[in-house]
Amino acid sequence: MPVQTKKHWQQRLHDVVYESNTIAGKAFDITLLLLIFTSILVVMLDSVEAWHSRYGYIFNILEWVFTFLFTIEYILRLICIKKPWRYVTSFLGMVDLIAIIPSYLSVFFAGANSLLVFRSLRLLRVFRIFKLTNFISEMQFLGAAIRASLKKISIFMSIVLMLVVILGSVMYLVEGRQHGFTSIPESIYWAIVTITTVGYGDISPATPLGKLVASLIMLMGYGIIAVPTGIVTNEMVNAVRNKKLHTETCPVCGRESHDADAKYCKYCGAKL
Amino acid sequence: MPVQTKKHWQQRLHDVVYESNTIAGKAFDITLLLLIFTSILVVMLDSVEAWHSRYGYIFNILEWVFTFLFTIEYILRLICIKKPWRYVTSFLGMVDLIAIIPSYLSVFFAGANSLLVFRSLRLLRVFRIFKLTNFISEMQFLGAAIRASLKKISIFMSIVLMLVVILGSVMYLVEGRQHGFTSIPESIYWAIVTITTVGYGDISPATPLGKLVASLIMLMGYGIIAVPTGIVTNEMVNAVRNKKLHTETCPVCGRESHDADAKYCKYCGAKL
Amino acid sequence: MPVQTKKHWQQRLHDVVYESNTIAGKAFDITLLLLIFTSILVVMLDSVEAWHSRYGYIFNILEWVFTFLFTIEYILRLICIKKPWRYVTSFLGMVDLIAIIPSYLSVFFAGANSLLVFRSLRLLRVFRIFKLTNFISEMQFLGAAIRASLKKISIFMSIVLMLVVILGSVMYLVEGRQHGFTSIPESIYWAIVTITTVGYGDISPATPLGKLVASLIMLMGYGIIAVPTGIVTNEMVNAVRNKKLHTETCPVCGRESHDADAKYCKYCGAKL
Amino acid sequence: MPVQTKKHWQQRLHDVVYESNTIAGKAFDITLLLLIFTSILVVMLDSVEAWHSRYGYIFNILEWVFTFLFTIEYILRLICIKKPWRYVTSFLGMVDLIAIIPSYLSVFFAGANSLLVFRSLRLLRVFRIFKLTNFISEMQFLGAAIRASLKKISIFMSIVLMLVVILGSVMYLVEGRQHGFTSIPESIYWAIVTITTVGYGDISPATPLGKLVASLIMLMGYGIIAVPTGIVTNEMVNAVRNKKLHTETCPVCGRESHDADAKYCKYCGAKL
Repeated sequence: MPVQTKKHWQQRLHDVVYESNTIAGKAFDITLLLLIFTSILVVMLDSVEAWHSRYGYIFNILEWVFTFLFTIEYILRLICIKKPWRYVTSFLGMVDLIAIIPSYLSVFFAGANSLLVFRSLRLLRVFRIFKLTNFISEMQFLGAAIRASLKKISIFMSIVLMLVVILGSVMYLVEGRQHGFTSIPESIYWAIVTITTVGYGDISPATPLGKLVASLIMLMGYGIIAVPTGIVTNEMVNAVRNKKLHTETCPVCGRESHDADAKYCKYCGAKL
Repeated sequence: MPVQTKKHWQQRLHDVVYESNTIAGKAFDITLLLLIFTSILVVMLDSVEAWHSRYGYIFNILEWVFTFLFTIEYILRLICIKKPWRYVTSFLGMVDLIAIIPSYLSVFFAGANSLLVFRSLRLLRVFRIFKLTNFISEMQFLGAAIRASLKKISIFMSIVLMLVVILGSVMYLVEGRQHGFTSIPESIYWAIVTITTVGYGDISPATPLGKLVASLIMLMGYGIIAVPTGIVTNEMVNAVRNKKLHTETCPVCGRESHDADAKYCKYCGAKL
Repeated sequence: MPVQTKKHWQQRLHDVVYESNTIAGKAFDITLLLLIFTSILVVMLDSVEAWHSRYGYIFNILEWVFTFLFTIEYILRLICIKKPWRYVTSFLGMVDLIAIIPSYLSVFFAGANSLLVFRSLRLLRVFRIFKLTNFISEMQFLGAAIRASLKKISIFMSIVLMLVVILGSVMYLVEGRQHGFTSIPESIYWAIVTITTVGYGDISPATPLGKLVASLIMLMGYGIIAVPTGIVTNEMVNAVRNKKLHTETCPVCGRESHDADAKYCKYCGAKL
Repeated sequence: MPVQTKKHWQQRLHDVVYESNTIAGKAFDITLLLLIFTSILVVMLDSVEAWHSRYGYIFNILEWVFTFLFTIEYILRLICIKKPWRYVTSFLGMVDLIAIIPSYLSVFFAGANSLLVFRSLRLLRVFRIFKLTNFISEMQFLGAAIRASLKKISIFMSIVLMLVVILGSVMYLVEGRQHGFTSIPESIYWAIVTITTVGYGDISPATPLGKLVASLIMLMGYGIIAVPTGIVTNEMVNAVRNKKLHTETCPVCGRESHDADAKYCKYCGAKL
């Protein structure tokens, strides 16, 4: 019956587009990855004056070819699943959309093409393709550690922001306009460049007092950089320790997170 | 009776100004936060030549409006508490004062206005407003770790200072005046820029020997930067570990190292 | 019988060339090390214009002398072992080959000489010569920790790469050609320079918006640099912890986590 | 009897010069510290052209005054102890000598004066003066951690050195003389500037290929910087953990380093 067949081709398509355990599926994924790589490369080369002037025309054609193919892929992804909307609203779904929109936008707005580099986000699929399950577990570990330290980091960052605002304005007072510290926002930019130890040198203190203050800021930044590192490291160490703790659950109260050397449930005292 | 009523309006005012669990209180806090943000923004924009020349007049008026409002707020905070002096001497209290003084100073001293950016310190109130209690606990954790490592860091810093004084003067001898190392303080500034890996490049060694010494300093700084990070991380790891260990011993088997949430001894199952 | 004698001189040669517990062996190794050092020094000095113009001829002769000696050494290493192929395919074996090939290449290709600096890899032999066994154990510790964190680091790096591609192209859109961001690859290069906190300053944002984005990137890089450090530190801490825990359980009370040097159970005092 | 009295004034002198628990001793130490500070300040100011031309004469006189006083102090330190030689050969003893020699050298060699900044080393005495015993314990902790990680760090550094030699020469081949990479040593200097994330920008890649290689080096350095930090942090964490282990010694075999939860000696099985 049609319905049956319909489901059938949809299911088959799904296996090809979403899964990669069939030959067709693997082929599809690898082709897709190569397409993504080349499309990004094309965008980059096209941005180089010398290449653009010579091969701009070809790049433009290629661009539309890629867009066309990605559009088809996007449609395929939509039609072969039960809940298309869930895919559209998913992270990878939005990435896929962002990968094709710019080309169409470029018809109306010049330069929108450059947004195409956001396609590099699609490379995230690489983690799926080669079935790097353990890699994914590593990612989860990193993700967990970063998520756990996000609060602390955000506090740290907000404090750093206040610091650079104050330090920047101090330098604005000390150095003044004639030495490149043309305004407070400019000075704040300098303070960020300095405290993050980037140090472009496009703006640098000229007066003795300015250099003294700058030195203090640098030494401060030297100590401050220890904080985010400490936070993340600490969370990772804990993540590992806690992972150790996720041993068996209590047979009575069914609660988890007993130490490795625990003989009795620490919540209800039942024998483990 | 008057006293009663007096206490009454004072109490009500207190709830609005200091607390944020009433609608009025929340409204007050959010308005305050917005005022702080805008006032800082105004100061910044006013420092930009282009904006100052065009809207300097308006900025000036706004400045006085903000100062007026903050002054009222300050007075309100004073009159609605039992011990005003405790507020004045508190950190937030001094910050609030620093936020209004510059404007009045600017009447006598030109440029004092720039000090207004210290208002950014007032943003610390943001942590109170949104009742980010757990954020505050995180802050305490960070604070504790930093306080614990302060001694070690200060030793480290004093050693670094000696180091840069010596290294700076060595470079002054090696490179000499003609290559930008015009004086020992200047060379010390360079040494700090180098050892903190900021590296502006406003001063950089020119002679082969100078570059050799500079390379050694850089590699030294490369290793040295590990120390503050190590200190802070270590303190954080300990903070977590100790938080875990600060629990009573088992009354039966007398063994320690039970988790904070343990109700029963994990070794013998006895009630803690 | 010849075979016996043959084996004999081969064995003796092996002791000199590969071992360093005999006087001859030690002498050989130290001479070799000195040769390596001088050969590298010669290549470096030869690259300095001033020195090349003056002593280029002598350097060239020395170069061939070193190549000749290293070639002999290579042949000796081949003939005095049972399985020469294993040596050729070993890391040190390839390094030794790389150390002599460039000179011969330079006969056909000019400038190939510069490849001679790869001889510095031979310095790895230093670890063998002075019988720094404990140093080697330290190396193994480091190696283990790095190997263990390699997966996480590679994930981290691939994410950083995506980030710089996106951020770079954003800056290309924001700043544009006239401010040094001449192309997307160029902007990506800038993004890497910025996020790694190197900050040459050969390219730096000029527009206010550009500086704002740059500031965000710097602060991002400030937080991001914590991740690899966290990963490596974490692995090292675990390496130490695991090294401690990899010990048998007590035969009597069956409890674990005895130190590596424990002879008796620390809980019940039973012999392990 | 003379000997008695002699010993007497010597003992008293010793208390003043070496100890700081008497009023005289404290006064001596503080005066000394102030002298050191001022002498360093004078050397620094004297190196500034503007100050030298104006007050050079006074600075010179002051210099000789300080030298005279420090010489007297040095002699006092020698005569009031039993084993003067031990003091001379001690670290602080050599520092004290280094602090006075340059002035006398400057009579024969111009510029030797600049060496006077090595007096800053004398500031190490500050740790003694204020009886910062706990500070000293902190120093010992830091010292222990650094000493413990010295081996690993030195291996790491030697590997980094090989790396920069190789990378530097690669860049020399890629960029060539016309882009500032005038020689291999110069390129190695650049590689160090880059891998340590200092990034002066006095030399920076100009060719696309050069920028690609440079990017790889930066990302490498980004990962590499994690290693020393990891090493030091790890050692500190262990130092703390081990410090915990230094609990009571075994009553039978008298050996230490039992775990906190150990009930029996892990070496001889005796009850603790």
